[in-house]
Amino acid sequence: MPTQPSKSLQVVPNPHPDIHYEVEMVCPEFTCVCPMTGQPDFATFTITYVPGPKIVELKSLKLYLWSFRDEGHFHEDVTNMVLKDLVAALDPREMRIDAQFNVRGGITTTVRTRYLDRTS
Amino acid sequence: MPTQPSKSLQVVPNPHPDIHYEVEMVCPEFTCVCPMTGQPDFATFTITYVPGPKIVELKSLKLYLWSFRDEGHFHEDVTNMVLKDLVAALDPREMRIDAQFNVRGGITTTVRTRYLDRTS
Amino acid sequence: MPTQPSKSLQVVPNPHPDIHYEVEMVCPEFTCVCPMTGQPDFATFTITYVPGPKIVELKSLKLYLWSFRDEGHFHEDVTNMVLKDLVAALDPREMRIDAQFNVRGGITTTVRTRYLDRTS
Amino acid sequence: MPTQPSKSLQVVPNPHPDIHYEVEMVCPEFTCVCPMTGQPDFATFTITYVPGPKIVELKSLKLYLWSFRDEGHFHEDVTNMVLKDLVAALDPREMRIDAQFNVRGGITTTVRTRYLDRTS
Amino acid sequence: MPTQPSKSLQVVPNPHPDIHYEVEMVCPEFTCVCPMTGQPDFATFTITYVPGPKIVELKSLKLYLWSFRDEGHFHEDVTNMVLKDLVAALDPREMRIDAQFNVRGGITTTVRTRYLDRTS
Amino acid sequence: MPTQPSKSLQVVPNPHPDIHYEVEMVCPEFTCVCPMTGQPDFATFTITYVPGPKIVELKSLKLYLWSFRDEGHFHEDVTNMVLKDLVAALDPREMRIDAQFNVRGGITTTVRTRYLDRTS
Amino acid sequence: MPTQPSKSLQVVPNPHPDIHYEVEMVCPEFTCVCPMTGQPDFATFTITYVPGPKIVELKSLKLYLWSFRDEGHFHEDVTNMVLKDLVAALDPREMRIDAQFNVRGGITTTVRTRYLDRTS
Amino acid sequence: MPTQPSKSLQVVPNPHPDIHYEVEMVCPEFTCVCPMTGQPDFATFTITYVPGPKIVELKSLKLYLWSFRDEGHFHEDVTNMVLKDLVAALDPREMRIDAQFNVRGGITTTVRTRYLDRTS
Amino acid sequence: MPTQPSKSLQVVPNPHPDIHYEVEMVCPEFTCVCPMTGQPDFATFTITYVPGPKIVELKSLKLYLWSFRDEGHFHEDVTNMVLKDLVAALDPREMRIDAQFNVRGGITTTVRTRYLDRTS
Amino acid sequence: MPTQPSKSLQVVPNPHPDIHYEVEMVCPEFTCVCPMTGQPDFATFTITYVPGPKIVELKSLKLYLWSFRDEGHFHEDVTNMVLKDLVAALDPREMRIDAQFNVRGGITTTVRTRYLDRTS
Repeated sequence: MPTQPSKSLQVVPNPHPDIHYEVEMVCPEFTCVCPMTGQPDFATFTITYVPGPKIVELKSLKLYLWSFRDEGHFHEDVTNMVLKDLVAALDPREMRIDAQFNVRGGITTTVRTRYLDRTS
Repeated sequence: MPTQPSKSLQVVPNPHPDIHYEVEMVCPEFTCVCPMTGQPDFATFTITYVPGPKIVELKSLKLYLWSFRDEGHFHEDVTNMVLKDLVAALDPREMRIDAQFNVRGGITTTVRTRYLDRTS
Repeated sequence: MPTQPSKSLQVVPNPHPDIHYEVEMVCPEFTCVCPMTGQPDFATFTITYVPGPKIVELKSLKLYLWSFRDEGHFHEDVTNMVLKDLVAALDPREMRIDAQFNVRGGITTTVRTRYLDRTS
Repeated sequence: MPTQPSKSLQVVPNPHPDIHYEVEMVCPEFTCVCPMTGQPDFATFTITYVPGPKIVELKSLKLYLWSFRDEGHFHEDVTNMVLKDLVAALDPREMRIDAQFNVRGGITTTVRTRYLDRTS
Repeated sequence: MPTQPSKSLQVVPNPHPDIHYEVEMVCPEFTCVCPMTGQPDFATFTITYVPGPKIVELKSLKLYLWSFRDEGHFHEDVTNMVLKDLVAALDPREMRIDAQFNVRGGITTTVRTRYLDRTS
Repeated sequence: MPTQPSKSLQVVPNPHPDIHYEVEMVCPEFTCVCPMTGQPDFATFTITYVPGPKIVELKSLKLYLWSFRDEGHFHEDVTNMVLKDLVAALDPREMRIDAQFNVRGGITTTVRTRYLDRTS
Repeated sequence: MPTQPSKSLQVVPNPHPDIHYEVEMVCPEFTCVCPMTGQPDFATFTITYVPGPKIVELKSLKLYLWSFRDEGHFHEDVTNMVLKDLVAALDPREMRIDAQFNVRGGITTTVRTRYLDRTS
Repeated sequence: MPTQPSKSLQVVPNPHPDIHYEVEMVCPEFTCVCPMTGQPDFATFTITYVPGPKIVELKSLKLYLWSFRDEGHFHEDVTNMVLKDLVAALDPREMRIDAQFNVRGGITTTVRTRYLDRTS
Repeated sequence: MPTQPSKSLQVVPNPHPDIHYEVEMVCPEFTCVCPMTGQPDFATFTITYVPGPKIVELKSLKLYLWSFRDEGHFHEDVTNMVLKDLVAALDPREMRIDAQFNVRGGITTTVRTRYLDRTS
Repeated sequence: MPTQPSKSLQVVPNPHPDIHYEVEMVCPEFTCVCPMTGQPDFATFTITYVPGPKIVELKSLKLYLWSFRDEGHFHEDVTNMVLKDLVAALDPREMRIDAQFNVRGGITTTVRTRYLDRTS
């Protein structure tokens, strides 16, 4: 029974909340469309975070990234949207996202953004 | 004015039909969906051909490959479908297609197919 | 519902039996145990074949390779066993297997074997 | 309708001005001419910035870099000229430019420069 | 006489306790099973530590990592379990573990954790 | 005194006409413009030949390739034009040209052509 | 109980004598001494063979290669000596040896030799 | 008119003295001779500096490095000699030199030195 | 006249004692034997130091490393022994040694140690 | 006692004249000067041969290649001169030379030549 794309991220409790550790997930299969031309864009998302109370469930992350497939977004916008969604769902201590988009007009663009929980 | 995906391949006359030469086009942005699960598949298509009377117009090839984005196909099937469409449109002397699909279940699959015009 | 390891290979009809094409599957997650010491061995299997009437179903191949996890086999033996099982299930026109085993005693071993259907 | 090279950089508002993030653009197709010999020079420009109120429009950046094609400049000069033009147009929080020029006389030259808005 | 997998880590005295030095061990042959599906997972563990009074005996480490072969663990959990077991056995001044798990669902996950003896 | 771009290729006598040897020249700095859009194209030309009575003078080849900088040509056309010019100037026993053009529309194109003097 | 270096190669029966397959063993830890200066030489031996009635036992091969550690031999000589010893022990259908020796006097030397059983 | 090797370095005024930027020059063609044996040595010099009032003229640097071709110097000595000559000629804010010499006696040596103008 | 292995390190005066510079020597040909099994071990030693009054003579270093060829040592022990011998002979301002040993039991071990002259 | 550059190649008898084997020597330290400008050229020579009655003594080859250091030669000429000298000295069954010269004027040139003893 195939599962459908969804903006709803599933989480599970962090099994080692006493340790300050890092999880990195490299997702080379991100695609959305250009909001101006409607043509497909492709990117590799590298998501790195220090878990707080929760960790992300991997299959749920895959379905979340898949949900952008038919949506139109600028590079700088969609990268920060993913950051905000993941921070809201996971309440991490830190999170970084690097999104490397494929070459367009002879230029390769990478957007790098980060969140730091200043209260932890 | 953005152009839309289309199965219709545009061609132009071969400027040097007196020479037996080869054109290779590497397209790392192919995506379709799995016909069983509906989940996205990603592949790099490498298309190599020896032109006959016609060569393919590059933008038209991009739109043609884009047209598979929402269609469901098995790896072995879609690779040979692209071969047959391109052979029909271009009438080449030879054509090879290598389609390298991203890892699924820990396995990376590549389909390699070719056409040889035995009359030329 | 997780599926269990199984020696039973599933096949589907070749969608393009009129074309002589090649399928390559790289499987870096093969493991079995040494029949003399019981210690684990690890290998990357690269399976390449020219389909005849059937193609292998990918998930079934994963479960088949998984079925060797607790079995003891010599490198030269298990590589040829996989070849014979796949030839029996698929009746291919040609098949090659390269199995690259991890270093043991400072030596990295690769076994390469092939099948050619001389009647096709 | 092809667009022409232009020193005029187009910008759009930063969609996430609340976030301190970085955009990197790698442009391997920069070319100008040597002011002493008139011979072509080639370079890869890597432009990285932390956006302030504006982000650069990608096609406009391409046309801007193209505008140097027939101009004569020394390596150290043109790299800093591009920095000053981009800083004037974008008012970024930070910007770095690395320009790696092709080998001349057996020597490969890279110029690295940066801007830091000390008021932000 | 083959040795069996064992959670019991063997140690030997640090031959140079007067020096603050680092030992890195790269173990690309870690495998366990997914606790939800029972399917095998594969990872490369990179273990780095600054020895305190003891260093780990290499064959013992191999048998310890082997002991996870038939156990079910989440990525984030098993990486921190290994850290805790090694810290308990070795009492190191510092220890880092990077566990890079093979791609699942198009996503490659790495878990990085560390221990710092704040008393040394 | 800088030299100007020129279609005129200079040659010198082959110093070892008794030997069947090969000369390969890799030229990563080829640029021309697109005949449809006027935008710049970039390519790496790899020219390989078996000399007959003459070899090409290297600086002359550089000026010849430079002469295309402001001209508009299709990929397939310009590659074969260079082949024909070089064959006319050098009368080689064999010549191959591989022209790898930078990515456009997500697709990287390489044109490979060759000449064989069937009388030698 | 550690085993000692020995020129005596152990063999086991080929488990699949009906199949023409290839075994490659890469041994980067070969060392002997220079017969003229007594200084150590280092090489990577790549041994590839098509088994006849026997295959080599891996640990025995390791001890065999180890046996050259204190012996003085020229590069060209020792490579062919290993070939002759292995052919005598295994009676293979084919065997190739590539021995790549470390740089001496600014020159890296590789010796490649092969055996073909013309009766098989 | 070929120019001759010369210890005399030519400089030009820094076109952007208001900016703190860096110039890196990689020179893989340095050669001198061993002062003990008279045999040739080869190295790649990487020279990086932050310009003060002057920048080095590239052709002059080439001729300067060429001037060591017939001179005998130890690795540690010649690297620091080049540093001192360039600092005297350019009065830079900072300069680093990495000189990687080719393997001799199985050992590859790199000398890294730097200058920092503590008054700037 | 071949020179023999020797623990005696030769030194020469530092030609530029006024400069704080670094010398790195990469020695991929280190070999000793395992003290438990007598089997050969292989490692690449990378030795980096900031010279004080003396620099090491390169041929002497080669003979020194050669002297371990028939000795039995644990990885952690021999790396620190080399550090102590070199510090005693050279009285450097700083020294680092990275020793990367070949894979054993599927595990690659690197030992990294350093010395810092706190009086300089 | 350092040895001087010399055109005189030393040879030794082939220890295995009964075997058809290949020796490859990679020499990245070839340098000569340009006959037109007097400026240095650099190349990597790869010499491969099938020995006849003799093999080349390695140190002698080093001194032979060194002898070109102050001589002026065109790329195509010097490569074939080395071939002819080595064939005269060694009387090999086959010999190939690939000489890859460093980039000049943005172009990297490789000359490949070969000798085949048609009587053997």
